[in-house]
Amino acid sequence: MEELIKSILLFREERDWGQFHTPENLAKSIVIEAAELLENFQWGPACDQEKVAEELADVIIYCILLSDCLKLDFYKIIENKLKENCKKYPIEKSKGNSKKYTEFE
Amino acid sequence: MEELIKSILLFREERDWGQFHTPENLAKSIVIEAAELLENFQWGPACDQEKVAEELADVIIYCILLSDCLKLDFYKIIENKLKENCKKYPIEKSKGNSKKYTEFE
Amino acid sequence: MEELIKSILLFREERDWGQFHTPENLAKSIVIEAAELLENFQWGPACDQEKVAEELADVIIYCILLSDCLKLDFYKIIENKLKENCKKYPIEKSKGNSKKYTEFE
Amino acid sequence: MEELIKSILLFREERDWGQFHTPENLAKSIVIEAAELLENFQWGPACDQEKVAEELADVIIYCILLSDCLKLDFYKIIENKLKENCKKYPIEKSKGNSKKYTEFE
Repeated sequence: MEELIKSILLFREERDWGQFHTPENLAKSIVIEAAELLENFQWGPACDQEKVAEELADVIIYCILLSDCLKLDFYKIIENKLKENCKKYPIEKSKGNSKKYTEFE
Repeated sequence: MEELIKSILLFREERDWGQFHTPENLAKSIVIEAAELLENFQWGPACDQEKVAEELADVIIYCILLSDCLKLDFYKIIENKLKENCKKYPIEKSKGNSKKYTEFE
Repeated sequence: MEELIKSILLFREERDWGQFHTPENLAKSIVIEAAELLENFQWGPACDQEKVAEELADVIIYCILLSDCLKLDFYKIIENKLKENCKKYPIEKSKGNSKKYTEFE
Repeated sequence: MEELIKSILLFREERDWGQFHTPENLAKSIVIEAAELLENFQWGPACDQEKVAEELADVIIYCILLSDCLKLDFYKIIENKLKENCKKYPIEKSKGNSKKYTEFE
């Protein structure tokens, strides 16, 4: 993963794209790519695995760029969120249902 | 990263959420979380770093889940997309501008 | 407006597209078109007015289709939401600031 | 419809929100609300009609605001897009299938 992140940052640097990559523009880019990913499922559940893989990779690449841009620790923020989700969604309340934690009794 | 991915999959398994995590539902989830991330920038470029980190982590976690669900190799798809981007955006054509490759002359 | 709505529904009927236009698929379509609209602003505030007009129209057309699909009254739901927004955002609390109502003191 | 549009613009004016409503911010707002609409269908096709109506109204209200902001004619842009769609999707090629026009043979 470390090598991949370095390659992504080098790709940006070589093109001098850092100037466009403000946090706001990257947040827009993530949602734009996420919607292109969703377009594969616009009319139903079946999908072209290869196209999905490409769009998914686009989302992840922009996520890595935003993380770098805000000097966030890519692994740490995932780890923290997972810990928080474990608290929000205790196994006994959430097992086998898709309720949002705000809907728990 | 390997450890994180394992923790995410265990989190899902313990809650028996695999049944809800179809590729289509995960694609919807990614765009929903991406829009919550964007909400931090709805009225301008300033943002609360901590909230952004949380929403960004949500996007990444769903990306990891979709990748697993479709049996994609998380690293490989990023690597492949990066290679493709290098072809689509040669340094001499894209340096210092944000044009889409379809707009190159 | 009535005439426009009728034309949109006729367009759908002539193509026998009602079968694809489930509420879920239309909700996906709205977010997909909304993201194409946002793509015009991906790297900054300037935009091509004509392209924006086209994408905006796409969003509205899908909104009209979803409204019809769920047998909602297009005007009534806007009117109701506007009334609710008037309550949520009283002039004295919201004038000149972009705070969400959940952040009011 | 005319009355509704006037009410929406008055609502904005009374709160002095025009300053936040740049085309870019409104485009972000449309996608944010569209994703909240989609959240009703995150885990499947069933939905709460009332919640969907509210979120759908939010999307439409922001569409009206963006249209006003760019001095677009709300009806004209829908009419134009519909005409274009009629050309892109001739009945004989698109009847009963959900193919994108780029995929026609």
